[in-house]
Amino acid sequence: MTDALFPRLAIIGIGLIGSSIARAARLNGLVDDIAISDLSPVILKRAEELSLGDSYHAAAGDAVANADLVIACVPVGAAEAVAEAIAPRLKPGAIVSDVGSVKGSVVRQMKPHLPDNVQFIPAHPVAGTEYSGPDAGFAELFVNRWSIVCPDEDTEPGSLDRLVAFWAGMGANVECMSAERHDLVLAITSHLPHLIAYNIVGTAADLEKVTESEVMKFSAGGFRDFTRIAASDPTMWRDVFLHNRDAVLEVLGRFQEDLFALQRQIRWGEGDRLYDLFSRTRAIRRGILTLGQDAPEADFGRSHKAPSKPSSE
Amino acid sequence: MTDALFPRLAIIGIGLIGSSIARAARLNGLVDDIAISDLSPVILKRAEELSLGDSYHAAAGDAVANADLVIACVPVGAAEAVAEAIAPRLKPGAIVSDVGSVKGSVVRQMKPHLPDNVQFIPAHPVAGTEYSGPDAGFAELFVNRWSIVCPDEDTEPGSLDRLVAFWAGMGANVECMSAERHDLVLAITSHLPHLIAYNIVGTAADLEKVTESEVMKFSAGGFRDFTRIAASDPTMWRDVFLHNRDAVLEVLGRFQEDLFALQRQIRWGEGDRLYDLFSRTRAIRRGILTLGQDAPEADFGRSHKAPSKPSSE
Repeated sequence: MTDALFPRLAIIGIGLIGSSIARAARLNGLVDDIAISDLSPVILKRAEELSLGDSYHAAAGDAVANADLVIACVPVGAAEAVAEAIAPRLKPGAIVSDVGSVKGSVVRQMKPHLPDNVQFIPAHPVAGTEYSGPDAGFAELFVNRWSIVCPDEDTEPGSLDRLVAFWAGMGANVECMSAERHDLVLAITSHLPHLIAYNIVGTAADLEKVTESEVMKFSAGGFRDFTRIAASDPTMWRDVFLHNRDAVLEVLGRFQEDLFALQRQIRWGEGDRLYDLFSRTRAIRRGILTLGQDAPEADFGRSHKAPSKPSSE
Repeated sequence: MTDALFPRLAIIGIGLIGSSIARAARLNGLVDDIAISDLSPVILKRAEELSLGDSYHAAAGDAVANADLVIACVPVGAAEAVAEAIAPRLKPGAIVSDVGSVKGSVVRQMKPHLPDNVQFIPAHPVAGTEYSGPDAGFAELFVNRWSIVCPDEDTEPGSLDRLVAFWAGMGANVECMSAERHDLVLAITSHLPHLIAYNIVGTAADLEKVTESEVMKFSAGGFRDFTRIAASDPTMWRDVFLHNRDAVLEVLGRFQEDLFALQRQIRWGEGDRLYDLFSRTRAIRRGILTLGQDAPEADFGRSHKAPSKPSSE
């Protein structure tokens, strides 16, 4: 017998999030054994070189056999294929979860394929960086970040408790909400910000009157913050927009409406209205700092020393 | 006699940038004497408590008497009032400069008021943080950041060299360009990013379906990066948009056009086009890191430890 929360964990997809879970679950003693699968032989080999798990499987079905907890850490567009691949091999009583940034679509893709004798409880850790792949993960990624778990009417309270304990064991705060609500909340706090960041970086690159070299040189005036977000994994984000289309289009419509109002205020020199908005937005920043969801250091605590040598590409 | 580049420096406006100049000029031995003026008696008193200068003057005219270099560090909308106040008291041969984020408007506001026997050379250090006021400044703010200097046909090479040496002496890289070009380049690298950030934070605050508490809690998905920028000084930014209207409206038009194209791609599920854009934008991020204009650490190097206590408001 073991004291681990889940004796055997299977991770399908060993990128930034999957490899961070592997590291955090191990570090915090939440599992005894980690089985890893990835579609890419190169990435699977790299996971083995990094000793992220105990066994490595080209086929997702081989990884989930005997697993007590299975977590799909794949782009949202690959959720259905994973469900089809693992369904026949799942152990009765296993919990199946995921980490996708969209939840409604993942439920629609995965749940119909999964047998009734497993518990499917989707989840989404609201954490990440602009880097991708198994080398980019780290055990502390989820500490003090929120992880959203989306139970439904079929969820057994005992299974839900164990999944919540797993995320809490990795340092995360956990909140439960419906998949539908998740998709609306994340559309504004994550999906729209990424869309806007990708868009402005694209606009800057396409301007004929300003060179790319000028854009990069003088990026410290604000632009560089957007480029960090716009360096996120393209496959993951393509899938987010395709799979959370309705909620994204809804908040994007609001953003556009507000932006046109702002454009008009600039055109007509309505300084008081600009000032009102620019003052109001400070309160939200203060709230985020109070909640410990960002660092209060000026400029994100960036160093203002001369680099010893230019960063490598 | 003295070895200082400018024996006497006058700083008009002692906020984030003014106080950073005071600290950096002193630290690097670029001046012997610093005279400080600020419209606000409270801020002037605070500058004195922080020992930022050698003398403190309620009237800008009193501060500039006998100064070899005068730098206006005020919101762009206050440039003309400063020029009028200081013009009668300027020492012949003095250099007058500023740090405003818009250059064309500052030239139009200040130059007509200044006597022919001083050199007016506007400048703009592309550096800053989201905090304001004399306590927020620090001597290293300009290190390895670009400072743009905008000479014109009336600029004497010797005076230009000394102003460039002053900025270089505080650790900045210096580039010269016309005021018009500056305003176009900064419109995309700084003004539009701020406008977009203010706008999205406003949109989020106004959504009825998602609470402010949810927005703040789950901000680590991308939104929080925008709130840092949207916490910048409202007066300064109101003036930027009012005074660089044409260039801002031009790049904003391009941004809107691109955003509508993206919206359409999402609506019609054009995943390949989304993927193309999201891949292309990574190259710009790499360029900025290579130029040393941002930190390569994941997530801006933010800590992923649990805070010992919540940050104070």
